[in-house]
Amino acid sequence: MSKNASLKAALVIIGDEILSGRTQDTNTRWIAGKLGERGIALDEVRVVPDVQERIVEAVNAMRARNDYVFTTGGIGPTHDDITSESIAAAFGVAIGLHPEAVKMLEAHYHAKGMEVTEARKRMAMIPEGARLILNTVSGAPGFVIDNVHVMAGVPHIMQAMLEHVLPGLGQGAVVQSFSLDVQIPESELAGPFKALAARYPDISMGSYPFMRDGKWGATLVLRSTDEHDLARASEDLRAMIQALSR
Amino acid sequence: MSKNASLKAALVIIGDEILSGRTQDTNTRWIAGKLGERGIALDEVRVVPDVQERIVEAVNAMRARNDYVFTTGGIGPTHDDITSESIAAAFGVAIGLHPEAVKMLEAHYHAKGMEVTEARKRMAMIPEGARLILNTVSGAPGFVIDNVHVMAGVPHIMQAMLEHVLPGLGQGAVVQSFSLDVQIPESELAGPFKALAARYPDISMGSYPFMRDGKWGATLVLRSTDEHDLARASEDLRAMIQALSR
Repeated sequence: MSKNASLKAALVIIGDEILSGRTQDTNTRWIAGKLGERGIALDEVRVVPDVQERIVEAVNAMRARNDYVFTTGGIGPTHDDITSESIAAAFGVAIGLHPEAVKMLEAHYHAKGMEVTEARKRMAMIPEGARLILNTVSGAPGFVIDNVHVMAGVPHIMQAMLEHVLPGLGQGAVVQSFSLDVQIPESELAGPFKALAARYPDISMGSYPFMRDGKWGATLVLRSTDEHDLARASEDLRAMIQALSR
Repeated sequence: MSKNASLKAALVIIGDEILSGRTQDTNTRWIAGKLGERGIALDEVRVVPDVQERIVEAVNAMRARNDYVFTTGGIGPTHDDITSESIAAAFGVAIGLHPEAVKMLEAHYHAKGMEVTEARKRMAMIPEGARLILNTVSGAPGFVIDNVHVMAGVPHIMQAMLEHVLPGLGQGAVVQSFSLDVQIPESELAGPFKALAARYPDISMGSYPFMRDGKWGATLVLRSTDEHDLARASEDLRAMIQALSR
């Protein structure tokens, strides 16, 4: 794969259980980290209800403006698992039993002395033209259609699926970061930090406040794909903090 | 406030630090829970970068189709805090020093023997026509413009702000839920669970798989605003599980 300066991705979480507040999402952070290591920037996340038109809308909006889209959730065997049909609808293609997916399910269930029932076969219903993503954990595969990667929602299955597809994705310029926690309130950092940011227009500089032992501080984060530039700016940031601490 | 059968809200997270994978979001779950208690369903979450046009796009899309929109993040004093300007742009209004906000900052900083510097005054720049949301933690207020509620990103400040605005929001029909963890794989639950869902079209029924001690199970969740209906369906769900466990 060629090294592309800027590759970006969106995540669509099919997520009644996130929207109800029942479940704490942890997939976003994991996916962001893994994509980041490959130089693919997570550019947007949408959490939408388990409703076909909402999934279609989000996936179509995101696939048009990103190099990659990932979805999590809704590919199991129960009636509320509507992701595969929704993706087929988003692409305007038919959905049907995928022979290779059926074989994967047979291999998985036969090894446990179980049959591939009608309910289980539902997990082999794949939109036309998609290729499968191996599921090493529980048999039922994910799939890729065009630039959309459809994965399970259960974290350890999703992780296995993403690890499986990552080597086939493009390699972008990896964003390096430097961060510094300082026990100085943001309102005192703001002036010099703004001046520093103005000196390095290609470096993204963010300040994230925190309170520790009743006192305000901030994590200052510098991010850039240019290691050399980042090193220089980080030195300047340290000098700025030393001057402020005097 | 009148009791409205369906009130819905969207959350826009201004979130470079979430998208980079550096920070684990916990605000979504807390906000979802608090809104749920008031009968306001969280219907979508968008995490967008700290870029004005992206904030404007998300806020305008979400405010057009929800009763309420909440934003978190980007209202501090540093140069990367661009939420207030972005909200002003989304509404096409000017932004300026809000006299009441300046007074809030003065009260906060003077109590600590500190001055309201130019950097701190930045936190009193509020879009025209907005009313303030009290910040009991750190002085700098949030604000409400039309149906958009602009809050801090730091969890305990955001929480104090949301508690402050909640009593002024409409009261919707509260969704009650019943959930049952069962050590039966989803593929065996699927048939009877689908039949149960068909008998109760007004009850949302979801199945969320988990693995415990190497065995698959699922959390079955029933949700409805009708307590009586929910109680009957929950009884039927228990009976279904007993029949499957025999």
